[in-house]
Parts: sequence; C-alpha cells; structure tokens
Amino acid sequence: MVITMVKGATQEQVDHVINRVQELGFEPHPIYGVERTVVAAVGDERGKYQLEGLESAPGVEKVTPILQPYKLVGSEIKRERTIVDIAGVRFGGSQFGVIAGPCAVEGRDQILETARAVKASGAHLLRGGAFKPRTSPYSFQGLAEDGLKLLAEARSETGLGIVTEVMNLRDIEVVAEYADALQIGARNIQNFSLLREVGQTSKPVILKRGMAATIQEWLMSAEYIVSEGNERVILCERGIRTFETYTRNTFDLSAIPVVHKLSHLPVIADPSHGTGIRDLVAVMSKAAVAAGADGLLLEVHPDPEGAFSDGAQSLLPEQFGTLMETLQGYLALEKRHF
Amino acid sequence: MVITMVKGATQEQVDHVINRVQELGFEPHPIYGVERTVVAAVGDERGKYQLEGLESAPGVEKVTPILQPYKLVGSEIKRERTIVDIAGVRFGGSQFGVIAGPCAVEGRDQILETARAVKASGAHLLRGGAFKPRTSPYSFQGLAEDGLKLLAEARSETGLGIVTEVMNLRDIEVVAEYADALQIGARNIQNFSLLREVGQTSKPVILKRGMAATIQEWLMSAEYIVSEGNERVILCERGIRTFETYTRNTFDLSAIPVVHKLSHLPVIADPSHGTGIRDLVAVMSKAAVAAGADGLLLEVHPDPEGAFSDGAQSLLPEQFGTLMETLQGYLALEKRHF
Amino acid sequence: MVITMVKGATQEQVDHVINRVQELGFEPHPIYGVERTVVAAVGDERGKYQLEGLESAPGVEKVTPILQPYKLVGSEIKRERTIVDIAGVRFGGSQFGVIAGPCAVEGRDQILETARAVKASGAHLLRGGAFKPRTSPYSFQGLAEDGLKLLAEARSETGLGIVTEVMNLRDIEVVAEYADALQIGARNIQNFSLLREVGQTSKPVILKRGMAATIQEWLMSAEYIVSEGNERVILCERGIRTFETYTRNTFDLSAIPVVHKLSHLPVIADPSHGTGIRDLVAVMSKAAVAAGADGLLLEVHPDPEGAFSDGAQSLLPEQFGTLMETLQGYLALEKRHF
Amino acid sequence: MVITMVKGATQEQVDHVINRVQELGFEPHPIYGVERTVVAAVGDERGKYQLEGLESAPGVEKVTPILQPYKLVGSEIKRERTIVDIAGVRFGGSQFGVIAGPCAVEGRDQILETARAVKASGAHLLRGGAFKPRTSPYSFQGLAEDGLKLLAEARSETGLGIVTEVMNLRDIEVVAEYADALQIGARNIQNFSLLREVGQTSKPVILKRGMAATIQEWLMSAEYIVSEGNERVILCERGIRTFETYTRNTFDLSAIPVVHKLSHLPVIADPSHGTGIRDLVAVMSKAAVAAGADGLLLEVHPDPEGAFSDGAQSLLPEQFGTLMETLQGYLALEKRHF
Repeated sequence: MVITMVKGATQEQVDHVINRVQELGFEPHPIYGVERTVVAAVGDERGKYQLEGLESAPGVEKVTPILQPYKLVGSEIKRERTIVDIAGVRFGGSQFGVIAGPCAVEGRDQILETARAVKASGAHLLRGGAFKPRTSPYSFQGLAEDGLKLLAEARSETGLGIVTEVMNLRDIEVVAEYADALQIGARNIQNFSLLREVGQTSKPVILKRGMAATIQEWLMSAEYIVSEGNERVILCERGIRTFETYTRNTFDLSAIPVVHKLSHLPVIADPSHGTGIRDLVAVMSKAAVAAGADGLLLEVHPDPEGAFSDGAQSLLPEQFGTLMETLQGYLALEKRHF
Repeated sequence: MVITMVKGATQEQVDHVINRVQELGFEPHPIYGVERTVVAAVGDERGKYQLEGLESAPGVEKVTPILQPYKLVGSEIKRERTIVDIAGVRFGGSQFGVIAGPCAVEGRDQILETARAVKASGAHLLRGGAFKPRTSPYSFQGLAEDGLKLLAEARSETGLGIVTEVMNLRDIEVVAEYADALQIGARNIQNFSLLREVGQTSKPVILKRGMAATIQEWLMSAEYIVSEGNERVILCERGIRTFETYTRNTFDLSAIPVVHKLSHLPVIADPSHGTGIRDLVAVMSKAAVAAGADGLLLEVHPDPEGAFSDGAQSLLPEQFGTLMETLQGYLALEKRHF
Repeated sequence: MVITMVKGATQEQVDHVINRVQELGFEPHPIYGVERTVVAAVGDERGKYQLEGLESAPGVEKVTPILQPYKLVGSEIKRERTIVDIAGVRFGGSQFGVIAGPCAVEGRDQILETARAVKASGAHLLRGGAFKPRTSPYSFQGLAEDGLKLLAEARSETGLGIVTEVMNLRDIEVVAEYADALQIGARNIQNFSLLREVGQTSKPVILKRGMAATIQEWLMSAEYIVSEGNERVILCERGIRTFETYTRNTFDLSAIPVVHKLSHLPVIADPSHGTGIRDLVAVMSKAAVAAGADGLLLEVHPDPEGAFSDGAQSLLPEQFGTLMETLQGYLALEKRHF
Repeated sequence: MVITMVKGATQEQVDHVINRVQELGFEPHPIYGVERTVVAAVGDERGKYQLEGLESAPGVEKVTPILQPYKLVGSEIKRERTIVDIAGVRFGGSQFGVIAGPCAVEGRDQILETARAVKASGAHLLRGGAFKPRTSPYSFQGLAEDGLKLLAEARSETGLGIVTEVMNLRDIEVVAEYADALQIGARNIQNFSLLREVGQTSKPVILKRGMAATIQEWLMSAEYIVSEGNERVILCERGIRTFETYTRNTFDLSAIPVVHKLSHLPVIADPSHGTGIRDLVAVMSKAAVAAGADGLLLEVHPDPEGAFSDGAQSLLPEQFGTLMETLQGYLALEKRHF
C-alpha cells in the first residue's frame, strides 16, 4: 500500500503516518520526492482495511493498494487451473461444458421437451429456474419446489445433471437436495450471507457476475465461497450494465481471459443474458469459445413466444442444435472438446 | 404497449400479433404506416410480461412498454405524499429527518460517544451497522447481535431511534427486535426474498438505491415491499456506479425530484456514500436539501482514522454539528424544519 | 412516433396533439386506453425532431420514436453488404483485412522496421499516427507532416497502403494527400464538422466508435459522412467506457453483429484499444473473428517499452506473426481469408 | 509513480526497471516487500508518459501514477480562485453569473423575445447556438453567421453579453468576432486542435464536460487551453452518460466541489442538459447553487413546443423569472449575489 501525502505535508504528519503504519504491523518506507512524500507500507495484506483509515489522517492525500485483495481464488496461490466437476462434466480443462435449458421451469411438458431436445443436441447439463428473481413482483416467480421436482424428473429421463438458481438462505437446503450445481444470480453477487452459506455446502456453485461488479469484486465474491471451504466455483460472465441499451447488457468477453490471468477458477459465458437478443446468441457463443471460455450457459425454449420470461433471448431447440455443430470447429482450434 | 413490426412484415404476421394480443386479453389497434406497421395493445398491465414474449413472434421488431411497471408506489395511484414515521420522526412532510452515526458499531464507547454527539447536534435517529456487507470476507463483518444490543443501549441513553441494516432473511427477526427501522443496503436492492419478508414486517424500511439500479428498478424493489403490505418505505439515494472514480459513487441528486414526481414515497439522501469523501459531505448535504430530499443519512465517527470501515467519508462530530447549523437556513427556504 | 398522454389528460390536450401532428404533416392515430391515451403519428421521418417538441405540449408524458433515425447507412435501404476498398484490400466481403502498425510514427527506423515486420507476417495495411490526440498537452503529439512522409516512405518500400488519423479540418487535405484511408478517432466521433468534410473527400474513412457512443449514435455519425456523398465508411469497434477499469475500455464485441444487423457497412475491431493489455490482444482478436468482424486494427511496436504511447497494448512483431498464423483457422471457419 | 513488479520477479528484472527509471531522469527507490517488490520513481512529471512504457518491461505488473497530470489548472500551483470576466460579469468570486437563452437561435423574433425576457428577469448573459452539433445530419444545424448577427442584435438591444458555441477551427474567427465568450460543447471536450486554438484567442471559454469525461480528463482539456496562454476558462458541468435513462444525463453535482478542490478555475452548472426535463431544471438549479456552482447556464425558450431542439428541457420565460427570484435566498446563504 502506498500512502501519498498532500503537497506541503509537515514532517509531523509524515511521522504520524509512519508510526501508524508501524502500529498496524507494517513496515514503513518513506520516500521524500520533489513535490510529494509517499510512504510505502510493506506487510501482510489482512490488516489492509485498517491501513485505509489512514486516508483520514491529517496531511494524507490518498491511499493506493498495490496488491489484489483476494487470496484463495488468485492465480498467485495456485498456478494450475482448477477443474470443477458437475455431475461428471469437467469445467476448466479440455472439456467444454454446455448448460442449456429454459429461463424458468414453466411446466412438465415444457421442461421435459426442452431437456430431451438439448440432450439430443449434445448439451451436458440442464438449466431451468424454479425460484426466479424478477424485477417485478407481478411477474412469474417460478414453480418453487414443484419446479425442482420437474427438473429431477427431467434428469431421470435424460441423464442430464441439473443447474438451478438459489435465491436465498432458506432455499439452499431444498435446492441442494435436487440440484447438481447451485447458481448464484447476478443480483445476488454481493449477497454475502448467501455466498457464505453456499460456501458451506459441498455443491458446485456457478457464480454469475453482477451487472455492476468489477472483475475484482466478482473474484472477491468467489473468495467468500472458497474461504468457507467450497472450492468448486465456476464464474459466469453474463454482461454488465452500461449506457448501451440496444443489447440487454454489454457482454464483456474480455473478462474471460482476464479471469484466466487473475484466477485459477473456470469461467463460462452466458450469451443469452449477455446480449438479450436471440439472433446474437450463436455468434457470441462462437466468440466466447474463441475468447477461451470454459463452457456456455444458454437459454433454450421450445416456444419462445409463449415463454414466461426471456423469450426474446432464448434459442429454439433446432437453433441450439445447429450452434452445437458449429462450435465443433472452434473447439478443435482451441484444443477443446464437448 | 406498442408492438413494432419489421419493415416488410407480412399481413399474416401482423394478424398473428393481433390474435395473440387478443388472446392475452388486450385490445389490439393496428396502425399501418408508410414504412412500418405498429400494433398498440390496450389493456390491464398485469399480463404485460406475456406480451413481451411477442418480441419472439415472426415479423416483430420490438415491443415498447408505455406505462410504468409499478402500481402501489406510483404517484398516479396516490397523489399526496406518504409520511413514514420512524420512532416519532416523520419523513415525507415538513419535517426533515437526520439519521447519523458510524458506518459500523465497533464497540461500546464508540457507539455511545457518537450517539451522544449526534444527539447533541440535533440528529433525530442513530445509524450504525451490526451486520456489515463487506466486499472482502477478510474485512470487519460487524458485531452482529452484540452490536444491536449496543445500539439499544445508545437508544436508552440518548432517546434516539435506531436504524440498522438487515442483510438476510434469517436476521430479520433479531434486527426487527432491536431496530426502529430496517435498512436494506444497496447490494440487496434486488434481493427479492429479503424485500418480500421485510414487507411482511411492520417496521419502516429504508431502501437504498443499488449501484446499478435505474430509478424504475428501485421503485419496483419498493413495490415488492409495499405489495406485501408494508407501506412504510423510505427510499435513499446513495450514488450509482459510473466511469467516474474520483468520487466513490456518482451521487445522482436529480433522482430526488424524479422520485417525487413518480412516487408518493419519501426519499432521503446519503452523501457519505454518494461521494465517499469527507470534504464533500457537507456541501452535498446542502445540495440534497435544495434538491428536495426528505432527510439525510450521514456517517459520523469520532475517530475516522481508526474506523473499521468508511473512515474516509465519515464526518467528525464537530463537523456534523456545524453542518446541522448550516442546514437551518436551507431548510427554512424549503419550508422544512428539523 | 408514439405520443403518450399523462393519466387524466383532457380531451382538449389530446386534440391539441392531434392537430399539431397533422400540422407537421403526419397522420395522427389516437388510441384511447383504459389508463392512458396514446397518439401514434404516422409519416415521413425527416420532421421527427419537430415532433419531439410535443414533449413540451400540455398533457403529454413522453414521445417515443419507433423508427431508427439513420437512413443511408441502414440495412433497410440496402440489404447487401457494402465492400470498402482501401488500396486494393476489400473490407466487408470474404476478405479479412488486417491493419497493423505502431500507435504513433516516432521516427524513420521505428516505422520502417515495423512496416517490414507486419508486411512479412501478412498485414494488408500499415497504421501509424502522425497527428495524435493525447489527453495531456505535455504528451508526444506526433510528427505531423514529417510523420506522413515517413509513412509514405514505408509504403514505397513495402507496398502496404497507409491508414492514419486526421484530427481536424485543416489537416484533411495534407493527410488525404499521403494516406490511403482517413481514420477518425474515438474522441472525434461527434465532431460533426470533421465528419462532414471527410464525407466530401473520396477517401475511405475508418470511423472509430466513441467511448460514450451508443451503436445508434455511431451509425448516425457514419450517416453524416455518407450523407455528404462518401459511402466508403468502415466502422471500428474499439471499446466503450464503463465502470470496469481493469481493461482500458470494455470491448463491446456484440456491437459487431449488431452493426451487421442494422447496417450494410463493414465493421472491424481494435482489440488493442478495446483491452489496453498486450496479453489480451491475441485472444480477443480471435474472438473478434468469431464475432464476424470484417478486419482488425492492431498496434504493433518493435520496442513497446520505449514506445512514446500505448506501449502496454502493443504487440511485438513476433507476437503479431504468431497471431496471424493462429487466425487462419478461425478465418477458415468463417469462410474468410486474408 | 510506483512500479509494482509481479510476484516472483527476478532481481535482473528489478534492476532493469531501476536502470530505466534512472535513464529517464527519475530517482528510483526500490522497496522489497514480503510478496512484491515495488519501485518508486521520484522526479519531475513531464517525462511521465515514458515511464508508463515500463508497463511493458519484463516482470512489471503495473505502473501507478501518484501525482495529478495537470499543472496550470491545478489548485497546487495557485491557491486563490481565478475570476473569469465575460462582458463585465465575474465568474469565480462572489458574483453568481446566469447565462440564459434558447438552445439554438431560430429566428429574429425568437432570439430578441428571449433576450428581452431573460434580461428582464435578471440574466447576465445571453446564450444561443448559431452552429449546432446535432446527432443527426437531418436535424436543424443552426443559422451560422446569420445566427451570430441576430445574437449581436440582441446584445445591442438588451446589453447582454453573448455566449455561443464554436464547433470547429474554421469558425473560431467568425464566432470570436461576435461573441463575448466561446463555448466548447460536450462533444468537443477532446477535440484537442480546437482546444489549442481557442487557447490562442483572448476570449473567455466555457468548457463543457464531455459525457464520458472524468473530472481529471476535463481538467486536462482545460490544461490544453490554458497552456496556450488563455487562462480565461470556465468549466461547465452538464451531466455524464450512465445507465440511467430517465434523465437525459446524470447530473454530477459532486463534480462542482471536486473541481473547486482540484482547480482554481470557476465552474458553473447546466441543469437543462444535466437533467433534460423542464420540471427538474429549477430544483436542480437550487441544488447547484448549494453545491457551490459559480453560475448557471440555462435554456429558456418562449415556445418550447415549437423549439427546433431541446424544447423538453427549456424553461418558459416566466418559469425562468420565478427561478431567478427563488435563487436569491440560496445565494444569500452562500454569500453570493447575482
């Protein structure tokens, strides 16, 4: 951490900072420059938040952190990539995992039909929301445990593992009972209580990036889960909120290689939410493969026009099938396989 | 809702949209323009999310909503302003309520000293976090129920009502036991489960705007609470996330008069988080009064340099005292009073 | 255009809107709904900005445009893709054009060495700034006409056509004298005078997206050029400004297929500015090919550490060479070729 | 500047950085920490852009600037506020200057009527665009020199000084011939050629913040003007582009006290563009006064419904008159006067 003093800071103020840095267990290195004095504080990261209080000390202009705030999820602690296994599908290595299904479980026919279709096209896992976070209290909120049961039925029939969202602490148990992986939605990226408790389960977690989350904050949210003992975290880029409104979100594909640089965790992409537009999903899926994604999360619905949510961004089963074939060539170039 | 057809849409496609609009219980009004056909759908809002599925119908370019999606919190349903009372302080009318205190309850001396100081300067309510949502799992997470007890002790001594954050469903009961108002933090703005359950309590709720929440989404989150039966919601503008990094957030003061236009709920301002910089808090507090805010939420700490969090944006007690005096003149111009 | 009246608008107010719509030469279609009256205005787009004045009429809540505001650059006016030829390289068809070179021309050796290297690796055109838009007046501002002469020398020696930026009206003539294509930088995206005047030349124009430009505004800036008679416009996605600061910009690759949907103009990608990080350039170049880009604009420098600008995002010549080989496979899948 | 090495950087890499820092004329201070080595480079700022090239050196993780990049406009070089005089109106001291008028000069009656009205209500200066930067080439582009002549006529009649926008280099001379102050619009914030050349005139300049400009970049643009010898620069906050679309821009009022902290230049506010909504202009004008603005730039139009542009955000003359009266009380509290 580097503490920059204001121009004209007194020696007394500098000494106060030096003493405070020492008190907090860091080693101070004052550097007296032409225009400014800066004090570098060397030491263990954990007390950093107390160092930040120094911004309030007289004569201090700013406090600049030097190290990344995460530990367990960082690539410095572990160079090799972590492989996260969901129902036998391995994310993070040479396998490229595809999770497909409707936004929400709407009924038995819908989920079974979709499950069969995506299975036939080569999907590895089935997605589908039973608990739905909806902007409006008047929108369809999901079938709750009935939805989970339908997902389980679809698993029995097709053999596809199940990925579904958990929205709150109380539902972790019931969702974990049915699901093969727990999804944390973008709106819960900083629901730290939820992160901690999924970190106490043994289930793999798919952690979606929040719409205003920096990559660093996203990794810090993953750190919450991992620090509770659950290392089975897969990050999922799904677009961030910007001024551009033509697409539903701005799909930040550069975040894929950034995560690979900063962390050992696998990262997949969700071009359905990333773009919000069916016609863009296939092309941005290809781009995600080329950007190095470890897998895809895709919305597929047999009747998007009648979907209870996200119809506009859902692929038809036949479009999904075509996409899966198209991706083969790109995966080969990336030395990956389904 | 207006459904715009693509250029060259066939009559069959238009007819399909017309039929679908009727099926969903709306009245269709097709308008055949020079370049485009549009279909206006007239009717009750509640089924709107199904209409949006029409974006997936062949020949449809886009579906544009015309009405605001909220009902109960909107100014159309109720013209007069709602007054929300917290421990005898009335927000939304001529009284201007001031909630002050530290970011977090750190210990007995700290909270009592702060409570006495802000009380002496005229604050109406005491804030202080016992459960803290922190970006890092390694930062101070709050004293939990012990913190609530210290807040209660400060209330006993000073008579100040207590406002404190509730972070998850499980803590609602215990927080509600101690607190006079429940604060929902920016990171939980779309934690819909939490919103619903605080909506089932009888406690006033202070709902902070999320860092990526549009004003419309913020009102929809309030709608979640109100639709459960709890009308005692106070909105709190605390800055949004933008590209500007000099300030911690971009304090969107225009949101104050916008909320007053769209809703009957009171809205207060938090210039501590809005700016993140102690030296800006007083000036932006004045600006918030002039923008029509119904109150302020302010961080005050007797030793910002030693604070466990948010030291850089906390006022010293004497700065808070000076601010309270300064605000008198502005409140008089607004025909408001403490 | 759809004019939405406020709830409770009087018939007189509605009639005023209807009359005004007629006066402006549009055909009004009032629709009387349960909660609101809306008036659809059907007719030619050109007068649209006067219709917007209706937002100021009594009883009007908002005015919503239905059609896109551009004409000449839109895909509705011309379905087939436009091919833009720069010195024999054809952008927009099956050829995938690569423009490579340093951020700025710094000296004779630097530009000649780079030109030879990128030529050897298969680049089609040479980039290099002679006039540099720099945030600071104290940064290197470019060699001006001397830089253009060095570019011309590099062209003579290597046969590579030249792409270079023009920053202001006065320099158009001299830049056009030397360059094979004029680049308009991100900061000049809404320098409408400059857009008009490059529209009056016969040179191809590479129009970079502005850091706060929506796709619609970017297309409107292209419309300025095309409406002056110069149809030879290539759009260039180079990232937008968002809250994420790890990357220099947020590289909006989804904009590539969006532009292809909305417009007939070619669109290339600049992953150097899009990411700002050398290690991300190659991977995001692959992603850009997969997203359907018609070409790439890449920064290459033989000594990034000593570069006067943008060193951190410049590829070394050997990295560029490796990238060009890697791209072959992706281009084959896209049925493209260098 | 602080150069952070990657974890595991070799001593050879550290030595290379140390040598390079010395070569560039800075004094290196290596600090060997537990996890990282950092090298602080002490010295004169001017060569900083070359130091940034060090991000490309082997073993370097990042280069963090410590000092602000501007000099002449900074408060460190000059503590007392600069007063900028436009036609006898002094911005930056106790006088609070009000510049009012239509978005564009549309005709003789319109501008004269507006000038008389705003003069009668106490405005100090008349605004009105003769050259208009419009997103669409098909929108009204201004009356050009005819517009300037009408402004001059309005000045003759009312005595109000004139503020009008200059869009490009070629028009500087003609605009400067008529105008009392040159306005640089938000879209030209980084049109560095234009900034330089208005810096070579002796006219006061009103420099609007760009919609994606950080406060630091805005000050750097002012630095361009001042570094050419023209110190008469007034900054103007007019809102930035964010995800919030209810308001036309997000009016960043905190930027007012930030500019006052970082710079000695005056800063005014434009709530018309800042909000884009007539009903918000008066309230946000009050807030701007309370935030410490040195003046206001306001759009006033006698017939907003018929305005060629910006009708929705223009005050009616009587609304402007009421606002001017209202502001008196707030100015008194700020120890300011018209």
